[in-house]
Amino acid sequence: MPSEEFTLAFSCPNRAGIVAAVSRHLYDNGGDIREAHQFDDPETGRFFMRVRFAIVEAVVTVQSLTAGFATIAERFGMDWRLASREAVPKIVILVSRFDHCLADLLYRWRIGELRMEIAAIVSNHPREVYAHHDLDGIPFHHLPVTKETKAEQEARILAIVEEAGADLVVLARYMQILSDEMSAALSGRCINIHHSFLPGFKGAKPYHQAHRRGVKLIGATAHYVTADLDEGPIIEQDVERISHHDSPDDLVRKGRDIERRVLSRAIAWHLDNRVLLNGDKTVVFRD
Amino acid sequence: MPSEEFTLAFSCPNRAGIVAAVSRHLYDNGGDIREAHQFDDPETGRFFMRVRFAIVEAVVTVQSLTAGFATIAERFGMDWRLASREAVPKIVILVSRFDHCLADLLYRWRIGELRMEIAAIVSNHPREVYAHHDLDGIPFHHLPVTKETKAEQEARILAIVEEAGADLVVLARYMQILSDEMSAALSGRCINIHHSFLPGFKGAKPYHQAHRRGVKLIGATAHYVTADLDEGPIIEQDVERISHHDSPDDLVRKGRDIERRVLSRAIAWHLDNRVLLNGDKTVVFRD
Amino acid sequence: MPSEEFTLAFSCPNRAGIVAAVSRHLYDNGGDIREAHQFDDPETGRFFMRVRFAIVEAVVTVQSLTAGFATIAERFGMDWRLASREAVPKIVILVSRFDHCLADLLYRWRIGELRMEIAAIVSNHPREVYAHHDLDGIPFHHLPVTKETKAEQEARILAIVEEAGADLVVLARYMQILSDEMSAALSGRCINIHHSFLPGFKGAKPYHQAHRRGVKLIGATAHYVTADLDEGPIIEQDVERISHHDSPDDLVRKGRDIERRVLSRAIAWHLDNRVLLNGDKTVVFRD
Amino acid sequence: MPSEEFTLAFSCPNRAGIVAAVSRHLYDNGGDIREAHQFDDPETGRFFMRVRFAIVEAVVTVQSLTAGFATIAERFGMDWRLASREAVPKIVILVSRFDHCLADLLYRWRIGELRMEIAAIVSNHPREVYAHHDLDGIPFHHLPVTKETKAEQEARILAIVEEAGADLVVLARYMQILSDEMSAALSGRCINIHHSFLPGFKGAKPYHQAHRRGVKLIGATAHYVTADLDEGPIIEQDVERISHHDSPDDLVRKGRDIERRVLSRAIAWHLDNRVLLNGDKTVVFRD
Repeated sequence: MPSEEFTLAFSCPNRAGIVAAVSRHLYDNGGDIREAHQFDDPETGRFFMRVRFAIVEAVVTVQSLTAGFATIAERFGMDWRLASREAVPKIVILVSRFDHCLADLLYRWRIGELRMEIAAIVSNHPREVYAHHDLDGIPFHHLPVTKETKAEQEARILAIVEEAGADLVVLARYMQILSDEMSAALSGRCINIHHSFLPGFKGAKPYHQAHRRGVKLIGATAHYVTADLDEGPIIEQDVERISHHDSPDDLVRKGRDIERRVLSRAIAWHLDNRVLLNGDKTVVFRD
Repeated sequence: MPSEEFTLAFSCPNRAGIVAAVSRHLYDNGGDIREAHQFDDPETGRFFMRVRFAIVEAVVTVQSLTAGFATIAERFGMDWRLASREAVPKIVILVSRFDHCLADLLYRWRIGELRMEIAAIVSNHPREVYAHHDLDGIPFHHLPVTKETKAEQEARILAIVEEAGADLVVLARYMQILSDEMSAALSGRCINIHHSFLPGFKGAKPYHQAHRRGVKLIGATAHYVTADLDEGPIIEQDVERISHHDSPDDLVRKGRDIERRVLSRAIAWHLDNRVLLNGDKTVVFRD
Repeated sequence: MPSEEFTLAFSCPNRAGIVAAVSRHLYDNGGDIREAHQFDDPETGRFFMRVRFAIVEAVVTVQSLTAGFATIAERFGMDWRLASREAVPKIVILVSRFDHCLADLLYRWRIGELRMEIAAIVSNHPREVYAHHDLDGIPFHHLPVTKETKAEQEARILAIVEEAGADLVVLARYMQILSDEMSAALSGRCINIHHSFLPGFKGAKPYHQAHRRGVKLIGATAHYVTADLDEGPIIEQDVERISHHDSPDDLVRKGRDIERRVLSRAIAWHLDNRVLLNGDKTVVFRD
Repeated sequence: MPSEEFTLAFSCPNRAGIVAAVSRHLYDNGGDIREAHQFDDPETGRFFMRVRFAIVEAVVTVQSLTAGFATIAERFGMDWRLASREAVPKIVILVSRFDHCLADLLYRWRIGELRMEIAAIVSNHPREVYAHHDLDGIPFHHLPVTKETKAEQEARILAIVEEAGADLVVLARYMQILSDEMSAALSGRCINIHHSFLPGFKGAKPYHQAHRRGVKLIGATAHYVTADLDEGPIIEQDVERISHHDSPDDLVRKGRDIERRVLSRAIAWHLDNRVLLNGDKTVVFRD
């Protein structure tokens, strides 16, 4: 008998009985738990859970499951998501001139590693800049930004995001700072890749800053975008060793590799509902 | 109101309702889940779970909890452990001439990082070899091994282990191969640190083998001891980068650092009931 | 005054006076040393050196430098290379169905990170398989291999390599085993990426082997191809952490990332004359 | 014929002929180069070199070599050191209550991994605090520090350092901030281990800061002490992965392991003359 898999992820104030209620509900609906994580943050008193389960008999839909779960969610005051793993999430990618993250995401998407639909690519540079990439079938929007057009262009981007019903907006080395309004509108569903090991080297030209300081490792950081620049909740970070031989250009080169893998991991985890917000921080149920 | 924390870890054939039954039981006994992991191995059809919970009202003991849980455990055919986190687990350390792992474990134990009681240290070398270590209060057994005395000495070691009621035996660079009988007797509760990145370089002098082969990383492996030498279930591995500059002695030196951290992690996870056997492999709910 | 940079790399039996003779020669020709490494292998008694230098006054050519250096090279019995850093090395890429390394190399080449000319791409699959890649301007050869045609196709590949004057042949997940003759013909200038942390998991399906063994880290290995399968001199290796959650498919996915960066590093170092053969091993003057 | 090994390390303004002059001098004195590194920093125009060589015929002393080299050193304006590898360098260790780095250094020294003489241990805590360590034969100085006694105690420490002829002072988690005068007096020969991945989390309680910010990796930094707190030239850094499970105490625990290995590497490289100052940065010829 075919089965369908679902993912449920939530957080709520901790109290006894949460797991019992949730797992009982899943059991009563024919759910078979395949993987689960629970975490109680003693500092915030918040409880986090992600569960992947299969409904062995396909008598339920994500709608009916959702409706049924709403009562429990309300009882415990949950911030929650329930998704069928057959649904393909949609993302919008924003990019500027540096296209290494774009190239990487396109490849991972093409071979099915990142299971998603690229609903749109938005760039402040014209399509010719990306001539070497196969963008066939992906809507491309050239939205150049000046001080005067920024508000207008952001509105267009938001419209693209909303029309597409995008689950995620990715700043794949998009070299424009989002306005506070835009950041707020995309809260919790916009991931940026920052080319430094935050909180070190905030601001402009982090690789040049790192070179000047003489650090022995450089890194990159994927985080949710907030109005507070470079301060959003961190999803993933990684580093590589450098040496005195490395010029700023070498750091940029080594950084490209770090940025690619950090960003793609953060996206994969977000799309798989593995990342839960915990105030200014994240809970990541990696695997 | 004071509370006491417990850890429950088990595996059993997968079927629907396990988490529901377990979490219901914990809830009914006043348990509050603090951290939990569940994993279903699709290959073996086995389900693994570890849960750390607090009994907010201290009306139960580990005995009553255990008795109460036995029915559930039997119903699902569980291989299980339930332990109060206030209990201090006991270990017996076997060591030979190289004492870097011993020194490391003693330090971590002394400062409370490894919460355990060192019930005994057994060595095939005399106590003078360890003169620089503070072994005050730790029973030390000098049991030299020859081909003739091996069976007899192993029997003594086993007696020490059983008398101490040791939860774990650690081969901290103990350079004697255990007999099949001894391995069987300690099954699932004896951890060895192997000075190679298994399955590469099995057998004698792995660092010299690694040097000869010209690998660019060396490693170490902590695994449960089985009769099948170097083939026991792997708990943890780690590596470090080496170069053409490194002589075999340099590899031995770098290896000491890897061995220390790999072994101490494996022990910490075992004592915290984070390691579950899955056939020839392990499930490690790291954190 | 414009200057041109050169790289000199050599090995020879160790004896006193090598560095003095070489650096004197460079000085007499107006050379200014920018970076250099020397290493004496006490086991083989062989001395290795790589030096990058600039001729501040452009009064010499790589030909005249080469001619001038030949006497020294002969005196010390050197195995040597001297190259202008303005020359663009040529590579031939062999690939099969898995194209992640190809995609990666194309990208790094396109943005100038890997300074090289892709003289040809050879595949045992037709060009359509690579439809998503921009191969414009790169000669593509579809050379399907069967038991009967193997010798013939290898001869064609060799012809392509020789006609192109290729400095390097890269097996970018080329799933055909080269014959001993082919391996011999490409000795020291053919790099393969092996999808395991050698010497562990030689042979077929290494990720499946790794999954079965339950290792906690997987890796990839770039090595020079020799007739002795999976035994060629190792240039670079790297690893990533895995867990019980990872299926063989997950290992394949994580492995792609390791393979890409290990192969691209090995190629970059080889093209930059940083890799010197030392019997069955390599000396890599990384930086 | 027995031979003695020496290490020569220097930096000077770059110009043609440095390596030729140095290697000629070594050759003329019967020196055989075993390992060497040269690096030209294009930004500062400074040239760095370290060479390990053997005098096969033991007809020279470090004094005569030094005298002979002085002319060359003066000609090129070198900042230089020449040392026999048979000489045992002396270090003074400063420590406070946290003794994990001290324990680690004592062990590495005891087994000969760190070839040095511990000329003195200075602590602002009494010797009883270190009762579990075998300090036999190592002069121990209890120098408690208050605001009033700081200047006086620093003077005593300096006296201890000078009387011992110490090559290096190690702040092995010494929780006192050195005065500007003390920092200046120990310039280039005092290494501190900072418990953060600088420049992130300067100041007090870096692990708590890291926990609050929600980073996914923590690190430690070994650097030369300067008057500019937390800004001295970085010698070595390393990191470990953490997760939402980790409390500040867990970070402290994981940090101990990073601190130990980062500090011991920095010390080993310094004692082996592998670290050269380059303004606010370092050149580290690792191996």
